[in-house]
Amino acid sequence: MKDPVVRFSVSLPRSLARQFDQMAREKGYDNRSLAIADMIRADLVEHRQQQTGGEIAGTITLVYDHHKPHLLDLLTEIQHDHGNLIIATLHVHLDHHNCLEVLAVRGDGPRIKAVADALIAAKGVKHGKLTITTTGKDLPA
Amino acid sequence: MKDPVVRFSVSLPRSLARQFDQMAREKGYDNRSLAIADMIRADLVEHRQQQTGGEIAGTITLVYDHHKPHLLDLLTEIQHDHGNLIIATLHVHLDHHNCLEVLAVRGDGPRIKAVADALIAAKGVKHGKLTITTTGKDLPA
Amino acid sequence: MKDPVVRFSVSLPRSLARQFDQMAREKGYDNRSLAIADMIRADLVEHRQQQTGGEIAGTITLVYDHHKPHLLDLLTEIQHDHGNLIIATLHVHLDHHNCLEVLAVRGDGPRIKAVADALIAAKGVKHGKLTITTTGKDLPA
Amino acid sequence: MKDPVVRFSVSLPRSLARQFDQMAREKGYDNRSLAIADMIRADLVEHRQQQTGGEIAGTITLVYDHHKPHLLDLLTEIQHDHGNLIIATLHVHLDHHNCLEVLAVRGDGPRIKAVADALIAAKGVKHGKLTITTTGKDLPA
Repeated sequence: MKDPVVRFSVSLPRSLARQFDQMAREKGYDNRSLAIADMIRADLVEHRQQQTGGEIAGTITLVYDHHKPHLLDLLTEIQHDHGNLIIATLHVHLDHHNCLEVLAVRGDGPRIKAVADALIAAKGVKHGKLTITTTGKDLPA
Repeated sequence: MKDPVVRFSVSLPRSLARQFDQMAREKGYDNRSLAIADMIRADLVEHRQQQTGGEIAGTITLVYDHHKPHLLDLLTEIQHDHGNLIIATLHVHLDHHNCLEVLAVRGDGPRIKAVADALIAAKGVKHGKLTITTTGKDLPA
Repeated sequence: MKDPVVRFSVSLPRSLARQFDQMAREKGYDNRSLAIADMIRADLVEHRQQQTGGEIAGTITLVYDHHKPHLLDLLTEIQHDHGNLIIATLHVHLDHHNCLEVLAVRGDGPRIKAVADALIAAKGVKHGKLTITTTGKDLPA
Repeated sequence: MKDPVVRFSVSLPRSLARQFDQMAREKGYDNRSLAIADMIRADLVEHRQQQTGGEIAGTITLVYDHHKPHLLDLLTEIQHDHGNLIIATLHVHLDHHNCLEVLAVRGDGPRIKAVADALIAAKGVKHGKLTITTTGKDLPA
């Protein structure tokens, strides 16, 4: 059962429309509808995350200096304490000091938020970001 | 000098249009055009911010249905064409259809932005996000 | 409750003992006992794998040319069909053609063996190897 | 010219010694020395085979208890010291104690062998294995 297409018209200030067209071109879109559909989907993902509960998927990105005392033990301990939320971790050695670590996570939204907060707040973590996406189930392609 | 309004039509899968209408209502928008204008403005801000030069590190998060024809070939081709920017990719099988893929990237900002845009614009990618972080070098712990 | 240490004596042909000492030094061991303990643990892991059933953990390493028609679809389909065995996949772009892919797997031994066989047998996979290790639970440190 | 026999003593955790004795019995060995001699010979064959030159790609699989004091710092330090050989590391939390870590590696064969040996010899690593594959370049699909 194919999802039928609906058409509607949009009114925009001309300067905004022009800047939108340029950005869509720079991003590689062939037409406005595809660009707008992707913006809507991205907004739906964020919108749902801010609402109550539900299963989410996402990534937690961390950059840290692994020489910081006790940091590795702390980060690993937090991760093992929430092993059911963390699917796997990708670790990249940026240079002799700095690590880029990405955790693929899935589970209850507020609990994932709490793990991300704990990891990002750990002393020695220079930058951290929780990127929430979708489990894909509830989002039409 | 008032900015004149331009009109154009947008085609969306019906289920996506419905979810968009509901979100716009929940966010307090009176009509679709205002909601779309705000989405575009927010995207422009991010788009420009990511166009500043210099080496960056980050992650690209993608959720897609791997059954979509030619999608895997396209995503892999794009990634191999920019192999020097992409350190490694972590792939998680969310369910029988949906994949969560995270690319650890590092290199020139605008070029990373271009790869992310190409991947996210690929037809069948449900949601994608470029998370820019730091290489850690210029940031005290 | 600490695991007490037991001592026993070993007799070896002198030339073998010398070659063993040299290899242990080259591998970075400080004394023979630590080197022998590691050999025993590695042998226990392999020995158990060849016996019946039980949960195992391990990795499947694949090298393939992603331009090979239908290969990506086939590999991804096989992986999604056994999503409960495959924890995550790390993908590295070796060059424009060649991919190195490592799957972290965990579950019933014979089923993991079957997935590995199917992936390695896929046309276009140049080399593949199932590396069985332990879940760590049943192996003293 | 008969090769004379040398004797030396080995210290093992008791539980490991017991599991070794059982495995040796199951494999049909009459005494520990013969079983250990065979393990050493098999290891020598692999050790030498991995010392041949040229660029290789591969994976290093480790299982360890992250609670072991200083182990995480040591493993991370070794990895950063050879950052040019290690492309990325996939980390999976098997349970509250045990980690499965897979390193994707690429570079000079003997140097990769040395990193693998150092990681596997680290105290607290329960099991480790270097899986050598190909960079794909010299192998027709």
